[in-house]
Amino acid sequence: MKHEIREWMRQHREEGTLMLQRLVRIPTIQGYEKGAQAVIAGKLRELKLDVELWEPDGGELKDHPYFYSPRSSFSGSPNVVGVMRGSGRGRSIILNGHIDVVPEGEREQWSVDPFSGKVEDGKLFGRGATDMKGGIVSMLLAVQAIRELGIRLRGDVIFQSVIEEESGGAGTLAAVLRGFKADAALIPEPTNMRIFPKQQGSMWFRIEVKGRSAHGGTRYEGVSAIEKSMLVIQHIRELEDRRNAGITDPLYARNPIPIPINIGVIEGGNWPSSVPDTVKLEGRMGVAPEEKLEHAKVEMIGWMERLKDKDPWFEAHPVAVEWFGARWIPGSMDPEHELLRILADQYREALSCEPVIEASPWGTDGGLLSEAGGTPCVVFGPGVTQVAHYPNEYIELDRMFEAAEIIALTLIHWCGME
Amino acid sequence: MKHEIREWMRQHREEGTLMLQRLVRIPTIQGYEKGAQAVIAGKLRELKLDVELWEPDGGELKDHPYFYSPRSSFSGSPNVVGVMRGSGRGRSIILNGHIDVVPEGEREQWSVDPFSGKVEDGKLFGRGATDMKGGIVSMLLAVQAIRELGIRLRGDVIFQSVIEEESGGAGTLAAVLRGFKADAALIPEPTNMRIFPKQQGSMWFRIEVKGRSAHGGTRYEGVSAIEKSMLVIQHIRELEDRRNAGITDPLYARNPIPIPINIGVIEGGNWPSSVPDTVKLEGRMGVAPEEKLEHAKVEMIGWMERLKDKDPWFEAHPVAVEWFGARWIPGSMDPEHELLRILADQYREALSCEPVIEASPWGTDGGLLSEAGGTPCVVFGPGVTQVAHYPNEYIELDRMFEAAEIIALTLIHWCGME
Repeated sequence: MKHEIREWMRQHREEGTLMLQRLVRIPTIQGYEKGAQAVIAGKLRELKLDVELWEPDGGELKDHPYFYSPRSSFSGSPNVVGVMRGSGRGRSIILNGHIDVVPEGEREQWSVDPFSGKVEDGKLFGRGATDMKGGIVSMLLAVQAIRELGIRLRGDVIFQSVIEEESGGAGTLAAVLRGFKADAALIPEPTNMRIFPKQQGSMWFRIEVKGRSAHGGTRYEGVSAIEKSMLVIQHIRELEDRRNAGITDPLYARNPIPIPINIGVIEGGNWPSSVPDTVKLEGRMGVAPEEKLEHAKVEMIGWMERLKDKDPWFEAHPVAVEWFGARWIPGSMDPEHELLRILADQYREALSCEPVIEASPWGTDGGLLSEAGGTPCVVFGPGVTQVAHYPNEYIELDRMFEAAEIIALTLIHWCGME
Repeated sequence: MKHEIREWMRQHREEGTLMLQRLVRIPTIQGYEKGAQAVIAGKLRELKLDVELWEPDGGELKDHPYFYSPRSSFSGSPNVVGVMRGSGRGRSIILNGHIDVVPEGEREQWSVDPFSGKVEDGKLFGRGATDMKGGIVSMLLAVQAIRELGIRLRGDVIFQSVIEEESGGAGTLAAVLRGFKADAALIPEPTNMRIFPKQQGSMWFRIEVKGRSAHGGTRYEGVSAIEKSMLVIQHIRELEDRRNAGITDPLYARNPIPIPINIGVIEGGNWPSSVPDTVKLEGRMGVAPEEKLEHAKVEMIGWMERLKDKDPWFEAHPVAVEWFGARWIPGSMDPEHELLRILADQYREALSCEPVIEASPWGTDGGLLSEAGGTPCVVFGPGVTQVAHYPNEYIELDRMFEAAEIIALTLIHWCGME
């Protein structure tokens, strides 16, 4: 079987490459996912899956505690799900990938057209090639190989191409609420072929630090919010140290800061010769795989209250902490989970080497699948982590076909074969 | 003479108050100085001074090394100068005040209409009441008292109501270039009746601190420009310490930081979950009364080059220092200057107490008068320093008349009397 699948992949190398090129050439930034979803739905129908294509209902989603999106209508932005029914008595699996891509950014920073899908030296270039249309093509090839080789699985394979992963996960949440659940899930996000049974979650925060204005020539009569914000940043570093000291999970052994707290934005004052009376900090708080978002929030807020022990200024002028914008729910699969064992075994079989098994430094829709959908999830995919969201994004085509082969073999062992 | 002048002031209390009210009711923000300048020119003509009213020539000014203004045309924004010719053989003096006011800011922060000139409990409220239309009225009353009491001075009194002090001093520079110079000058800026023979200068700077971007989930792969900017701010504090340690002038004895370096604005990063790759700092560097702007610039730039000794990051990524926007030239009068002695004596005479003699924590047009015009200058005025540029700006009318009396007596002793 292993050899048959490898041979099938070899024969379908051109077809798979063309499919990825076709998907990359459709710039599926938020609101423009429709064309690519039609391509995928067409392919799934060709493979005789039961296909549903629908636009998530913003009105229904908006009250869900896990909902986040900058938009409330998903008109023109459909999800696609295709179910390959098993013969019964096998374990089901969700294969989940997102079709949306982040904008290409400044074109001058690209050395190729970001929506060309140009192939060079075994790499296919373009926005979304790595994150994560290459992963979607691996999923498609795996399903197609099983179909065309006449393999009959026992469990259902639920193929999902969702919108909105880059903006908070509304596409996957909509699929969960439509009733799609399974015994386990696999998401081929760009992991550099590493296996991530755990994914870090994250939340965005905004902290407002107060000062007291004065003329810059008599700055000693005021209190600089910029100087106070330096204490706040230092204090946040200490919280990060404490939180990370508590992470003993061996999956994070090679990660210098498993759950970082990043300060991404600082903004304060409005006049060079005035003492600034406000500074705004915005950042991203990493949330451990087994942690709840709520727990992390409470910890941050409690820690900020302790600022007053360092500087009495904060007694009368406590910092305000606000949670805003996107958040990604952490995800965690039992390290003894059978899907994980099967995936690692097929990796070894296919590539004759040990897989790297780690916890991811970023969130995926896996948190929603497990927390909202009760479907434990592993993340494993062919894309190049480093170039996701960057100019000159690319994928190595060899990895896409290797991942397809490993996913196909994993489906056979997980779902069972007649 | 002292008693006659005091009695004259008592009798002209209502007239002086109405004149200030009239000037405050004309919102002389940049570009709208014309109406108030016409009132002052009219009053000076009434007092038989030789009056010149002209719009400064932006084309002529723009190449002058001391020129700074956000605008290049002063159409509709005249200067007014009135000369009260002396009988000869006396010392001349410039009385200089600026008619322009800073904008009123948010109206909700005012408890009175900012251009009402409302009088309550001996205070007259309004934008410009303190900074510095009250000082201009003190100058006017002093000249009027001398005229109406029939006092004939020997030296010339050159009365100047200039534009643009709040935006870089182009009005005073234009008066200097028109040829108005004198043996000394007095500017009644709001000093709380303190005498400032020296004035701190200042310049605005912008510093760009570089980092290296990365995803916030793997922030250890990047270099935070926010963290690097904390080192830069600390480094600037040390420069401030060093520069102030060198200030031994007894006029600064009661000032905790004679020449502060204020960081007024910070701005960096643009995405909460990215490591920020740039931070911009903007601030105001105080310049000592006897120091040259150029010297302070060289010191700052040299100091910034030393950052690399603290952190090798700055070796490959030096900070960029830029000088932009406004700068005020420092001013300094010899502590033994005769005008200073006379002014202090008349203060004692009029108020029966010792004057406070200090160095100012901010610049005035005095730096231009002395540096560009060769006219040594002292700053002494009735306004309330603390409310300048603030909502609910006011002046205490008693101080305005006291200052008028002291200025009148100073003119008599400085210029000499027939």
